[in-house]
Amino acid sequence: MPKKVDHEARRQEISGALWRIASTRGLDGASLRDVAAEAGISLGRLQHYFRTKDEMLAFALRRINQLAGDRIRASIEAAGAEPSPRPVLRACLAGMLPLDAKSRIGTLVGVAYFARAVHDEQLRAEARDGIPVLRAFFADQLRLAAERGELAPSRATEDEAMLLISLVDGLSTYILLDVHGPQQALELLDLHLANLFGPPADGEKGAAGDQ
Amino acid sequence: MPKKVDHEARRQEISGALWRIASTRGLDGASLRDVAAEAGISLGRLQHYFRTKDEMLAFALRRINQLAGDRIRASIEAAGAEPSPRPVLRACLAGMLPLDAKSRIGTLVGVAYFARAVHDEQLRAEARDGIPVLRAFFADQLRLAAERGELAPSRATEDEAMLLISLVDGLSTYILLDVHGPQQALELLDLHLANLFGPPADGEKGAAGDQ
Repeated sequence: MPKKVDHEARRQEISGALWRIASTRGLDGASLRDVAAEAGISLGRLQHYFRTKDEMLAFALRRINQLAGDRIRASIEAAGAEPSPRPVLRACLAGMLPLDAKSRIGTLVGVAYFARAVHDEQLRAEARDGIPVLRAFFADQLRLAAERGELAPSRATEDEAMLLISLVDGLSTYILLDVHGPQQALELLDLHLANLFGPPADGEKGAAGDQ
Repeated sequence: MPKKVDHEARRQEISGALWRIASTRGLDGASLRDVAAEAGISLGRLQHYFRTKDEMLAFALRRINQLAGDRIRASIEAAGAEPSPRPVLRACLAGMLPLDAKSRIGTLVGVAYFARAVHDEQLRAEARDGIPVLRAFFADQLRLAAERGELAPSRATEDEAMLLISLVDGLSTYILLDVHGPQQALELLDLHLANLFGPPADGEKGAAGDQ
């Protein structure tokens, strides 16, 4: 199916153009025409793939989440055959922070998407849908840690998982506003994890890809 | 100085129009002309007060922060003559969440401002400037709590204060995305405070304006 592959490749190219705009001047006020120009194609051709800015943003965000997921999985695999829950959690949470150029672009597209999603139920549903899955996964890791005696059982809850997700969102905000740098944000995340689990064992912190 | 008062009143009116747009269709793509139309004045007249969208956003955000500050102070004063640090902290943090229609509009303007600030150093500086002051105030409250024996001294730090600020930012995000409701967000905040301080004393939680 060579034609389908070409369409996908073209969508990725357009998405790349969107990312470049997101990482420089931002997407507020950026039109489909602007993205077409950045991608070096006509507006008509772009609209063959994405009819609206929202459709394009949704595609770009899905692609970014997929890439972030790949990064996080690689980071967990690098931690060894059977990583324990704490480094898995840390790898996931660190993977959600804008710590380098790539993850920063992802976060910037996320910000643009979020600014529109708060006024659009369909975009909001898409942004929201991944969260219960993530929260359940984090809660599973917390329960696993409690079973292994690495966490007080009373802390192995969905609510503690949601605190982790919320905290990382806020830490990201203040990286983008230059309140703290990526390294400081990571240290704040580690402080929260140390409050939750206790001080890290030797080498545990670095095992899942210390930045 | 009647003339000056009029100018200020006009700025507030324009700001009100901006808030109405922010709370309905959002500010992404909203032009100065749109705001002028909503305020029922000409574009030229609006530009007499605000030359750019960014100037207008900065004014609206300052005004919103001022109103939020007033709300929080009222809530602290309602807690009694000498409120202890924990209810003061809770009142401040709850006051930063979009729990009702007014604070929700404030948060929505904040989102629009943030989406532009990530690409503009001047807007970013303005958004960022209040944070160290807030962090220092929260850290002072934590130290006061430690002195009173209500908090482990090791937790009375600027970093713990920054965790509180970051957490509230993330909790707000997920209210706006309908991941959780205002009441659930408040319960998550209370969970974090209980993890920090221990379970609340009878009536303490509600003293600073339980929602």
